[in-house]
Amino acid sequence: MTTEPIMDIAHLGHLELLTPRFAESANFFINVMGMTESGRARDSLYLRGWDDYERYTLKLTASKTSGLGHVAYRTRSPQALERRAAALKGSGFDVGWTDGDLGHGKTFVCRDPDGHAVELYYETEWYAPPPDKKPALKNQAQRYPARGVNVRRLDHWNGLAVDIKANREFFENFLGFRLTEQIVLNDGSEAAMWMTATNKSYDFAYTRDHTGTKGRFHHVTYALDSREDVLRAADIFLENGVFIETGPHKHAIQQTFFLYVYEPGGNRVEVANAGARLILAPDWKPIRWTEAERAKGQAWGLKTIESFHTHGTPPVEKHGHG
Amino acid sequence: MTTEPIMDIAHLGHLELLTPRFAESANFFINVMGMTESGRARDSLYLRGWDDYERYTLKLTASKTSGLGHVAYRTRSPQALERRAAALKGSGFDVGWTDGDLGHGKTFVCRDPDGHAVELYYETEWYAPPPDKKPALKNQAQRYPARGVNVRRLDHWNGLAVDIKANREFFENFLGFRLTEQIVLNDGSEAAMWMTATNKSYDFAYTRDHTGTKGRFHHVTYALDSREDVLRAADIFLENGVFIETGPHKHAIQQTFFLYVYEPGGNRVEVANAGARLILAPDWKPIRWTEAERAKGQAWGLKTIESFHTHGTPPVEKHGHG
Amino acid sequence: MTTEPIMDIAHLGHLELLTPRFAESANFFINVMGMTESGRARDSLYLRGWDDYERYTLKLTASKTSGLGHVAYRTRSPQALERRAAALKGSGFDVGWTDGDLGHGKTFVCRDPDGHAVELYYETEWYAPPPDKKPALKNQAQRYPARGVNVRRLDHWNGLAVDIKANREFFENFLGFRLTEQIVLNDGSEAAMWMTATNKSYDFAYTRDHTGTKGRFHHVTYALDSREDVLRAADIFLENGVFIETGPHKHAIQQTFFLYVYEPGGNRVEVANAGARLILAPDWKPIRWTEAERAKGQAWGLKTIESFHTHGTPPVEKHGHG
Amino acid sequence: MTTEPIMDIAHLGHLELLTPRFAESANFFINVMGMTESGRARDSLYLRGWDDYERYTLKLTASKTSGLGHVAYRTRSPQALERRAAALKGSGFDVGWTDGDLGHGKTFVCRDPDGHAVELYYETEWYAPPPDKKPALKNQAQRYPARGVNVRRLDHWNGLAVDIKANREFFENFLGFRLTEQIVLNDGSEAAMWMTATNKSYDFAYTRDHTGTKGRFHHVTYALDSREDVLRAADIFLENGVFIETGPHKHAIQQTFFLYVYEPGGNRVEVANAGARLILAPDWKPIRWTEAERAKGQAWGLKTIESFHTHGTPPVEKHGHG
Repeated sequence: MTTEPIMDIAHLGHLELLTPRFAESANFFINVMGMTESGRARDSLYLRGWDDYERYTLKLTASKTSGLGHVAYRTRSPQALERRAAALKGSGFDVGWTDGDLGHGKTFVCRDPDGHAVELYYETEWYAPPPDKKPALKNQAQRYPARGVNVRRLDHWNGLAVDIKANREFFENFLGFRLTEQIVLNDGSEAAMWMTATNKSYDFAYTRDHTGTKGRFHHVTYALDSREDVLRAADIFLENGVFIETGPHKHAIQQTFFLYVYEPGGNRVEVANAGARLILAPDWKPIRWTEAERAKGQAWGLKTIESFHTHGTPPVEKHGHG
Repeated sequence: MTTEPIMDIAHLGHLELLTPRFAESANFFINVMGMTESGRARDSLYLRGWDDYERYTLKLTASKTSGLGHVAYRTRSPQALERRAAALKGSGFDVGWTDGDLGHGKTFVCRDPDGHAVELYYETEWYAPPPDKKPALKNQAQRYPARGVNVRRLDHWNGLAVDIKANREFFENFLGFRLTEQIVLNDGSEAAMWMTATNKSYDFAYTRDHTGTKGRFHHVTYALDSREDVLRAADIFLENGVFIETGPHKHAIQQTFFLYVYEPGGNRVEVANAGARLILAPDWKPIRWTEAERAKGQAWGLKTIESFHTHGTPPVEKHGHG
Repeated sequence: MTTEPIMDIAHLGHLELLTPRFAESANFFINVMGMTESGRARDSLYLRGWDDYERYTLKLTASKTSGLGHVAYRTRSPQALERRAAALKGSGFDVGWTDGDLGHGKTFVCRDPDGHAVELYYETEWYAPPPDKKPALKNQAQRYPARGVNVRRLDHWNGLAVDIKANREFFENFLGFRLTEQIVLNDGSEAAMWMTATNKSYDFAYTRDHTGTKGRFHHVTYALDSREDVLRAADIFLENGVFIETGPHKHAIQQTFFLYVYEPGGNRVEVANAGARLILAPDWKPIRWTEAERAKGQAWGLKTIESFHTHGTPPVEKHGHG
Repeated sequence: MTTEPIMDIAHLGHLELLTPRFAESANFFINVMGMTESGRARDSLYLRGWDDYERYTLKLTASKTSGLGHVAYRTRSPQALERRAAALKGSGFDVGWTDGDLGHGKTFVCRDPDGHAVELYYETEWYAPPPDKKPALKNQAQRYPARGVNVRRLDHWNGLAVDIKANREFFENFLGFRLTEQIVLNDGSEAAMWMTATNKSYDFAYTRDHTGTKGRFHHVTYALDSREDVLRAADIFLENGVFIETGPHKHAIQQTFFLYVYEPGGNRVEVANAGARLILAPDWKPIRWTEAERAKGQAWGLKTIESFHTHGTPPVEKHGHG
């Protein structure tokens, strides 16, 4: 019998996204994406999709540049948080405990091998809608806004990393994430990975950064209910002058129906839909994609756009990619 | 700190459904529902949706009557299976070990307080498609059949039970299922419960059997990708002379977009879609619906059809319901 | 060879709807339905869907009661308008010429046998969007609002009438509308009719008024792009406390995917979708539905709700229906 | 007052498509597209979508090469057919009368300036479904097949032509088609046109043939009910190894949601959806697209694929395109 899996991470909790154009980014997330403001601090705005059960899933922070502030995962129990902290202590990846932030309690901070700031917490504040945002059905977190793209909930995020394998082992060993799909190049090196702690087929993905820069951000994704919603989102982005990078189309990898845009701060944002697809098998066998398979492009033949491999935030001065 | 949750059940594995009209039922599941035959035994046919990762999720068995043969849940690990067996041993609910069936290994059998046969197993056979059923994308279990309703995967099932509370406590304490929603009547008695072991908002539901008969079956549900697929299914059922009991409409409880039909053997079958809705919170607070709320009908106002409260399988000679 | 068809009416142009709750009705059409204000007069608000090419398709007028002010059809040419006026002159149905109204030129007014005011015009003002409503694609009348239900364009309306046959003959003979479907009762009397001047399967329908009152209004319908949009509309009506009378479901007659609500003034409003269905045959053979067929209910089995036969505007004091 | 429009053409009736791989093409249209065989002659198979009211809309003919056999339009009345024949007689475009073909009566044949064979007819055979293809709802031509892509009805076709302006004037003056959109290059020459005789925004389109070859074929399009159906079609084409040239995506011109594939004989086939979009205005003002606008690509930014400008049938030995 093999060792039993670590089940301590419950799900992706929130991201802090940095933007050099704070007001425009805030307008994008509220009026185009249809998100709701649920908190404000000095330089930050806290935002949520209408089905996010926690107070917020996006912390938007004014900054000199774009990119990721930090990413936070909620643990399954207080004990699970302590176990992960204990495992990380002295590993060289650990940063230490903080008191938390608006909406969540004590937090253990670490850095993945690429340097992305990763926070773990258990205590959280459930969203309590004010009267004008109370939903008609009480099993729903918030009233459907019927404004803009109406994103439902945080789905996953994608980081760039220099060493995919090192990151994979970090998330497997210290946090118990399971690999569901990956790209392995002809030379045996790993070029991308999709990992999950839930029944979603991924809670995050890491892709190799061709610039060799550590800790960058590729995109954050909010879920919509249907592919039709993603198509409508494309119409709405078009009407609002939002730059559409690629899509809507279906990824071969993970079969996600995707649409990528850039928010005014330069960060890539995705709206996507996975249909009824779930990973239910507790012993899922990771799907390995080869260079040749990846060269085929997306599911229905769309070639992967060049900028998808090069555009990350914060921007890098100069780089050779290939 | 509270006790940590039991995480030993991975997901609903399959159901055995009894039918007194075997050939017609088989034709319904294959040609109308669009399922694939993946095994045959003396009196049974094994069937699957195109996205089910295991060899089958439905065992259809010729019988004198309709109803449930048994339901099977897969555990998260071999150790988890042993732990659940150990917990059940001597509880009065345990039946004992078997060698398993086509497609899965050793199995621990028990009976819930209502007498439904519940099987637990870990070792399973992953579906291996023959050449003409190989999918174009290798992260998919089987080629999309493009026939009939094209059901994707087993989603949940619904049992009838005389004592809901006793069953809830059984599934919570012995198997670690979590309650997500329930109906509690004015007299404080529980009338229905929805429980999950995954991020789906329910893997099964139990509803009070107004006839006072134990162990009956209400329906089995297969998932479709979108509400549009459910609407199209209604068209296909209509064209095939399948009796549509109610729907498509949206449940207030769980917000599932539902459509109920009767298969030729008399068992109720549902096709449904939950959109992007998932229960991610590890500490989800169960939603309690009152009699008054339930009387409002479904989400958009459809009154719950009377037969929904009375039709179960196998049929009961006579009953007073209300 | 039979006589050639009259081709003089181009399409349904607009409706004037009366409301005793003007402010609430205006809020409903603008903020819930997602329509745009495109004109204002003393007691009237002019409203449009984002794909309506004329300046408006709904004139909402404050009144002591609810119901229809008038309905207007645009002719295919100036000559066609003159021909219809000439045909009606002296028929007993003619009222006479007016100078028109905001947005359209000279108008010939008549009354159908039931007394509904019917206006015919050719000269019209095309909608010219202000800068903030300019669409991204220049083959679209107005920017997609991304607010509320986002109705696309006026589709059809439904009147109540005491004598269906007399009205059918009026619209066939004087205006050249073609009958596409009808209900004929066992006694041979006509109970409902669907007529068109376009490739849509109906531009209007008339249903027998069981109260015996003349000239009443049953509903006005705005088109949405997909059945998914109609389902989403149901969610939005629910969230806004709008009374949903029946649907979403599919009509057997005309196969429209429907959803009926009451606007605050009491008038019934429908949002609907016909998919890709068009009547292309110039010699379409009307579909005749019998009492027995009608008793089956809607396409997927939903029983027709009682109020659908009784609720019309303006309300009638007392009535016997059957 | 301007002259009144010619209203003599009712709609696109059918196409004859030539294929050098008859058996494979037949299999594609029946099993992948989900069409129904409704007739057979020596070298031809007659095919239909489930909502086509006439006996067939596609005549597939074995040939040495691919391309268009002929295209047929149905007139609005017998008189309309005579009027169009009279107008064409002696024009140099007329070929003469024939007795018709399977499913339709006497036919007037002409050739457009580019040499495409164009047939006009009025008498037609309505499809009479055999018992196993009778629909559940009697206002539907045929039972929904629930097989493959399930195309609904013929929507439009696209020809290649050397001189767009000459063809536009031919279809306007002799047949009364109306121009709804066009591409006009910087030098003032016309590069593409979309024309209609119905409320659809186009019944056919002609695009400039860069090889300078006359009479070639670009694609034929069948309508689906929703964008979701088009996406599902992409999945089905992928599973069946059908070459997907481009899409699904939304055209800027006409806003059609498109998906292009090649059938085994080499002809391009489209499945598409126009939502609720109709051209209702009898005096629609043609939308003129410039070179600069066309260079922007499709609605959501997809670049127009090179082969879309070069691939036509039958193939041309050598060509310079640009």
